[in-house]
Amino acid sequence: MTALRKSDFPLIDVRQHLETGPIVLVTSAWKDETNIMTMGWHMMMQFSPALFGCYIWTGNHSYELIRNSQQCVINVPTVELADQVVAVGNSTGAAVDKFSAFALTAARADRVKAPLIKECYANFECQLFDANLIGEYGLFVWEVVKAHVALSVKNPKTLHYRGRGQFMVAGDTLDFHEKFRAQNL
Amino acid sequence: MTALRKSDFPLIDVRQHLETGPIVLVTSAWKDETNIMTMGWHMMMQFSPALFGCYIWTGNHSYELIRNSQQCVINVPTVELADQVVAVGNSTGAAVDKFSAFALTAARADRVKAPLIKECYANFECQLFDANLIGEYGLFVWEVVKAHVALSVKNPKTLHYRGRGQFMVAGDTLDFHEKFRAQNL
Repeated sequence: MTALRKSDFPLIDVRQHLETGPIVLVTSAWKDETNIMTMGWHMMMQFSPALFGCYIWTGNHSYELIRNSQQCVINVPTVELADQVVAVGNSTGAAVDKFSAFALTAARADRVKAPLIKECYANFECQLFDANLIGEYGLFVWEVVKAHVALSVKNPKTLHYRGRGQFMVAGDTLDFHEKFRAQNL
Repeated sequence: MTALRKSDFPLIDVRQHLETGPIVLVTSAWKDETNIMTMGWHMMMQFSPALFGCYIWTGNHSYELIRNSQQCVINVPTVELADQVVAVGNSTGAAVDKFSAFALTAARADRVKAPLIKECYANFECQLFDANLIGEYGLFVWEVVKAHVALSVKNPKTLHYRGRGQFMVAGDTLDFHEKFRAQNL
């Protein structure tokens, strides 16, 4: 896999990479430990500051790392990483170091201690914005504080979970911008 | 378009149609009025009862209908309906009856007053489960109380919004179920 060259990406435009609903890899760090988990229950919540909500189950090994550090990175994989995504989702950080086990490369983030996954075309550094919904709903409300995107990746072939072990791969892109009202673009 | 024959669908499996992150059409009814809006900021929140969260902006004409009735239907369109999805998202129910303007057919729901959109392959009837997050985040937490899905539609070619007037269309499906641990399926 060719190394991806990433640029700073405007936080106001984060929705371009998350609103489509891809499976993401969430990285975390706490004390001497790092981990990776797969996650598909998430949504954009606000443009600016860029808020992003996601559900994290208490049973995930990452839960305590994320809860304690109040930080994470949302990494967006594409179809080339499908085997790794499945492996990450079907193993636990309590037993394996997923970075070395699945040949994923940790890179230093700018604003948080959780690592970026180098092989993912987009990485969003997140700081916990609101902890009040974690108890009742497992809902973490994040502020995206820094975004890195490989702009060479046009129309990324992201993975979208259908349940039952099946993933939809992002297909064609349709451009309707000429039919949009200006204020909706 | 051939009429879709829909079946009752198990509420526990709703994620199969919503977790991929499709653009949905939200229908609502209040007093003598019905409306349709497009919506892309949503997520699954719980399996059972099936909870689904979504962001609805106060500026949407549908907001008051949904807020007052505490009900809606989440209708999932496929690519054949792309023109209508764009038209619905770029018009307001304050000025047009979107059902007649865009040739969408309202059908009676079982558990709520909001109509189903017949042309959409899946329809999820929702009752407001928690109103407490509407004020701060515009976040409606819904319980899906009835689901209708056209089972003839395999791997639905849903639309996923990339921003800037562009939609990703659902592509191929990859089956990894043999690599999943049983408890993850």
